[in-house]
Amino acid sequence: MTATRYIAFEGLEGCGKSTHVTRLAANLNGVATREPGGTALGATLRATMADTSNTALSPRAEALMMAADRAQHFEEVVIPALDKGLHVVSDRSVYSSIAYQGYGRMLDIDELRRINNWAIGGRWPDLVVFISVPLDVLLDRLKKRELDRWEREDRAFFERVLSGYQSMAATDPDHWLIVDGLPPKNELEPVIAQLVRQRLSL
Amino acid sequence: MTATRYIAFEGLEGCGKSTHVTRLAANLNGVATREPGGTALGATLRATMADTSNTALSPRAEALMMAADRAQHFEEVVIPALDKGLHVVSDRSVYSSIAYQGYGRMLDIDELRRINNWAIGGRWPDLVVFISVPLDVLLDRLKKRELDRWEREDRAFFERVLSGYQSMAATDPDHWLIVDGLPPKNELEPVIAQLVRQRLSL
Repeated sequence: MTATRYIAFEGLEGCGKSTHVTRLAANLNGVATREPGGTALGATLRATMADTSNTALSPRAEALMMAADRAQHFEEVVIPALDKGLHVVSDRSVYSSIAYQGYGRMLDIDELRRINNWAIGGRWPDLVVFISVPLDVLLDRLKKRELDRWEREDRAFFERVLSGYQSMAATDPDHWLIVDGLPPKNELEPVIAQLVRQRLSL
Repeated sequence: MTATRYIAFEGLEGCGKSTHVTRLAANLNGVATREPGGTALGATLRATMADTSNTALSPRAEALMMAADRAQHFEEVVIPALDKGLHVVSDRSVYSSIAYQGYGRMLDIDELRRINNWAIGGRWPDLVVFISVPLDVLLDRLKKRELDRWEREDRAFFERVLSGYQSMAATDPDHWLIVDGLPPKNELEPVIAQLVRQRLSL
């Protein structure tokens, strides 16, 4: 019996990761989920945080709401699925908090790691799939959407987030898989499935 | 010029602290506020947490939502008021999280202290006024109310919370003032005002 795995997709807004989360989860007969918003509580928290009228949200409050969403998600979805023998494929994870609230909003990264480690009871992803798409392409894609509060951040914010992801991937290559996100989704889908299976011996 | 002070009221449900927060704030020409729910964000978080249909709320998620409420409250209300030269009188504080989520829900107290210390940027109350009312009296008062999610906890939970308050007060007497909450509110009001003014040299 293969151990069940917890796989997180990471990347900037508009990189296409949500689609690949669904498809990889189907490929692995696993559970597709997401942060924030993978539970009823999380959906409430996500809606509050994404609300563009919420202009005065404190960065620390945002970071703690993300961690709260994560704690609920782990207790209600991630851990029960893993315990039942199902692989979990999640759209975002603890690494999003380090990238967005840490590098993006410039909060203390060690503190964020510690708080989030507590929220997830120390269960970090076995593998992070980072969907890499050039920032210019992403910002262009965002122009066609109705934007939420995060998507309205400026270019400098996204540059910091991106550099955070790059730095985490570079210092922890055993847990990170960087995938070129430019090819069409149907072309990418089997590539991702194969790379993930190889890495995790599935 | 006197330094502005941050005064927190603590105690179990039904002890009467909300009334005394308002009255002491008026007496000191200060700001009356509360946790959770002292901001628009906090009101949303409070409503979600108090909701009795929310039966599966993870203890860690609750603790992190409380800390998120607190971070927003500090950035939006507490710190700006103190900076403007106004005393702040708050219905509950970081000590409620230690009492309820720590002692009550038996989460790690050092971790809660650390997370909450980060949420409030290290600005702990200058004085805690603990309104002490015997548990039997309080449970009797609660019978006359429509109860929220916290108020529906069992006696053992409230006993743990109470022992947490007692332990915190005993080990930090410089910051804690224990007030007998049994006398009528109009009788207590001037007593509290006098004790607080004495302690803080106001």
